[in-house]
Amino acid sequence: SEQGRLLVKGEDKPGIVAAVASILREFGANIMSLDQYSTDPESGNFFQRTAFHLEGFQAMRPELESALEERLTRGFGMEWKLHSSSQLKRVAIFASKSDHCLLDLLWRHRRGELPMNVTMVISNHSDLAEDVRQFGIPFVHVPVDKQDRTAAERRHLELLQGNVDLIVLARYMQIITPDFLERIGCPVINIHHSFLPAFIGAAPYRRAKERGVKLIGATAHYVTEELDEGPIIEQDVVRVSHVESAEELARSGADVERQVLSRAVAWHCSDRVMPNGNSTVVL
Amino acid sequence: SEQGRLLVKGEDKPGIVAAVASILREFGANIMSLDQYSTDPESGNFFQRTAFHLEGFQAMRPELESALEERLTRGFGMEWKLHSSSQLKRVAIFASKSDHCLLDLLWRHRRGELPMNVTMVISNHSDLAEDVRQFGIPFVHVPVDKQDRTAAERRHLELLQGNVDLIVLARYMQIITPDFLERIGCPVINIHHSFLPAFIGAAPYRRAKERGVKLIGATAHYVTEELDEGPIIEQDVVRVSHVESAEELARSGADVERQVLSRAVAWHCSDRVMPNGNSTVVL
Amino acid sequence: SEQGRLLVKGEDKPGIVAAVASILREFGANIMSLDQYSTDPESGNFFQRTAFHLEGFQAMRPELESALEERLTRGFGMEWKLHSSSQLKRVAIFASKSDHCLLDLLWRHRRGELPMNVTMVISNHSDLAEDVRQFGIPFVHVPVDKQDRTAAERRHLELLQGNVDLIVLARYMQIITPDFLERIGCPVINIHHSFLPAFIGAAPYRRAKERGVKLIGATAHYVTEELDEGPIIEQDVVRVSHVESAEELARSGADVERQVLSRAVAWHCSDRVMPNGNSTVVL
Amino acid sequence: SEQGRLLVKGEDKPGIVAAVASILREFGANIMSLDQYSTDPESGNFFQRTAFHLEGFQAMRPELESALEERLTRGFGMEWKLHSSSQLKRVAIFASKSDHCLLDLLWRHRRGELPMNVTMVISNHSDLAEDVRQFGIPFVHVPVDKQDRTAAERRHLELLQGNVDLIVLARYMQIITPDFLERIGCPVINIHHSFLPAFIGAAPYRRAKERGVKLIGATAHYVTEELDEGPIIEQDVVRVSHVESAEELARSGADVERQVLSRAVAWHCSDRVMPNGNSTVVL
Repeated sequence: SEQGRLLVKGEDKPGIVAAVASILREFGANIMSLDQYSTDPESGNFFQRTAFHLEGFQAMRPELESALEERLTRGFGMEWKLHSSSQLKRVAIFASKSDHCLLDLLWRHRRGELPMNVTMVISNHSDLAEDVRQFGIPFVHVPVDKQDRTAAERRHLELLQGNVDLIVLARYMQIITPDFLERIGCPVINIHHSFLPAFIGAAPYRRAKERGVKLIGATAHYVTEELDEGPIIEQDVVRVSHVESAEELARSGADVERQVLSRAVAWHCSDRVMPNGNSTVVL
Repeated sequence: SEQGRLLVKGEDKPGIVAAVASILREFGANIMSLDQYSTDPESGNFFQRTAFHLEGFQAMRPELESALEERLTRGFGMEWKLHSSSQLKRVAIFASKSDHCLLDLLWRHRRGELPMNVTMVISNHSDLAEDVRQFGIPFVHVPVDKQDRTAAERRHLELLQGNVDLIVLARYMQIITPDFLERIGCPVINIHHSFLPAFIGAAPYRRAKERGVKLIGATAHYVTEELDEGPIIEQDVVRVSHVESAEELARSGADVERQVLSRAVAWHCSDRVMPNGNSTVVL
Repeated sequence: SEQGRLLVKGEDKPGIVAAVASILREFGANIMSLDQYSTDPESGNFFQRTAFHLEGFQAMRPELESALEERLTRGFGMEWKLHSSSQLKRVAIFASKSDHCLLDLLWRHRRGELPMNVTMVISNHSDLAEDVRQFGIPFVHVPVDKQDRTAAERRHLELLQGNVDLIVLARYMQIITPDFLERIGCPVINIHHSFLPAFIGAAPYRRAKERGVKLIGATAHYVTEELDEGPIIEQDVVRVSHVESAEELARSGADVERQVLSRAVAWHCSDRVMPNGNSTVVL
Repeated sequence: SEQGRLLVKGEDKPGIVAAVASILREFGANIMSLDQYSTDPESGNFFQRTAFHLEGFQAMRPELESALEERLTRGFGMEWKLHSSSQLKRVAIFASKSDHCLLDLLWRHRRGELPMNVTMVISNHSDLAEDVRQFGIPFVHVPVDKQDRTAAERRHLELLQGNVDLIVLARYMQIITPDFLERIGCPVINIHHSFLPAFIGAAPYRRAKERGVKLIGATAHYVTEELDEGPIIEQDVVRVSHVESAEELARSGADVERQVLSRAVAWHCSDRVMPNGNSTVVL
């Protein structure tokens, strides 16, 4: 059944939790889970995610939003967002030639693990077209000229602007320009194939082999203007040894990459991730 | 500074979160973290832990308790408990000859990781007396006659009744009788050296070796009348291989045991563990 | 390039490693890796896996086998097996309605992670036919009458006898009779959806929820006459909490199941698993 | 009983394993475990660790060494080292004010987990003197002048030169000069409180908090002239979340640090770690 989710964020002050709970109570909502976190008991930032059941949520939504506006925004100076579990996020996945992250997302989506609508897969190569179409999902081939990304990004914007709530880079391996980020106006999640901040940039598995690390990792993060520097959503590692070549590290790493990316996308699509400066609060 | 913790439990009904938050608001408390969980959105059990700051908490405590009694107990039929971070739980640790769990608890306690007062260590052997006394903690040797535990348990009760809030069995290896459990009237946490419900009972490492498992584990649980069947608080495992003998499994397992027990004790002493039938909710 | 693998097993005696190394040396082989393990330095069981490169291995194979027969079998009373990396094992996968283990095996096989030939997928349901055929692998639907498995097993034997080196039960959920095991004459690997020996038998996730465990697991093992009692090849776990329902445990568990099964199949197909009574030595 | 360990290293050539096994065979040794690894089947580096039992090993040692010299050094151009499990390595531990790594090493040593002789603990502070002396181990206070380390290092050399086989820096937090490294002439193992190469240098937990990582780690490595750049022996991580402050990260990290350092020291003292350029082979 339908679930509402209210995210509240701002400067911590006494009484916010009571205000949120009272508003929901007045509308007849039943709180299913409430997670609250403050960075500091005295004067920190406040983060709250409340999931609730409310008969006729969609009908009452404008009124509820007015009440939140009045009492949270004006009363406490808080930012808030209201989401409904029935309005799935529209997601576009960007891929290149590697299939592991893409297929894991599509397969988990098909079996109901990822609450999202995959509107299309965009790739700079056509290799994965057949795999994607078997899932009944549109595949669009947009070649990228590395000297001039303008044409490709214009095409991306034509396809996506106003039509997506999230872009997932499933080992897309192409630079996303600040200009594109600004124009698209929705969050972009990337999977980096290392345990950030170790091995920022290219060829992390080769560099991991050279450094002789005993664990390799993967990091899902929001994309910002600076390469591999955006807020981290999730990370994980797997044990390796001297025996594995750089190619075998890449193979073991692929397993971690797909798990980490799928978890990050699931959390984002369930409205569990709240950015806090350059890090994230996952509630 | 002082922190209050309010645990609320009972049949889920709309409005409980709002009631708790309002009461705390009225007393001027600032909620630092609130975790809430319901087993079912429709008609489940409700569990909530709220940590808050309140100037002059101890002075206001009777009034706050009256308000909670009126509005939570009578109003909603909920059970609740109020704790103060300044009232550390009084803990007695029972040990036998193995030192790893006991010393890890005492060492973590000394460095400030475990919010508790260790009132004494009781052992059926005297081997660990010197180790315990170096931590400045009383050590009491109470030999146990396996044919008749009455004398030992009488001595335990003399030492502890009314003076402890928690008993921790740090590889005590002796049976705790239902009679003792009832008389002592406080929770008892045990560490079992297997991943329950695998290898209930004696010699789990030997049986793990015989079965050829690839991971071994440890389980911290509340003690109930039935051996190794009480509510589980925490579990963990470590990877092993065919190379290790049963003795080496015991050695690797000791590391997991001490971590799992220390975590369970830390959570219990921070009022984070709420029993739910034969399982636990850890908030 | 081609790799030979020699597995040697038997009662430990001084000189076996030297004999193996000398024979390989005489034939001009270069040892790439050698792993050796004895259960006891005095009078235990000896296990050795040697991977080597040898130009013209296939041509020399009969002579090499004669030398091994003479010096290992007759000289030391050891059992041995010689494998070539170019002779992939012929594998039949049995599935039912769950797709996660099956698809993970097929997908890893396609990307070159699993050194095997999948000759066919057999299922008692037709649900997964389309998914399997997209990988270019034959799918055979063999319905099973739970009252009388004779007809189904006769069909299985017709399809497989003499044509497979390994059967993998990818959440097949049907009983394999001792009679079938004996007739088919090849190893059968099963994935059990619990951390054995916990939750042997049916509905492990439901029972895990009831017991309130904090980790759930999966176990890959060779199938023997006794249900869930065969030699364990690999196990792993994932952390869960009170929040997850039995259905969510099953979903989290599915990820562990597919990893554990894929690892076990990869190791078996690389001749790394040697049974030792009711456990395994993985070299 | 006594165990011999032979480490062999050099350019891979056919016949080395056979030569080693034959020599040991001729001397009547029984090989208990043999691990061999080559970086490349064609022309890589060869690493082998062989553990064996040999009655009267010490008496035969000179002869065995002559045979190894003749057939491995001259015959194959290999480097080798022969160790006896009865000759424990003499270890000096350097500490500062943090007790967790130091006490874990001493406690594991006392319970027989670490095959070494701890000859002394050296610290630039006197805080831990009492803790160390309870283990019956000499504690030497050598203050360090950060402007001029010469006096302290001279004192270290007086105490240690010729008397240690290994130095362990258990969160010593002082720079080790290249000059000292050269003069002392034995391996030095350090524990760095991050997952290298992430957070090289000072204050890794604070920087981990700022970067918002979801796992924190620790790395044990051999000390070389370049800070935090030596060959890695072991690493591990622990999951953290937005909830933890930098201080709480340090507390969680302390558990990983002590495990990782203890494992690295155990492996080194069992002759299982072979440097390979700037990485290690752990056999």
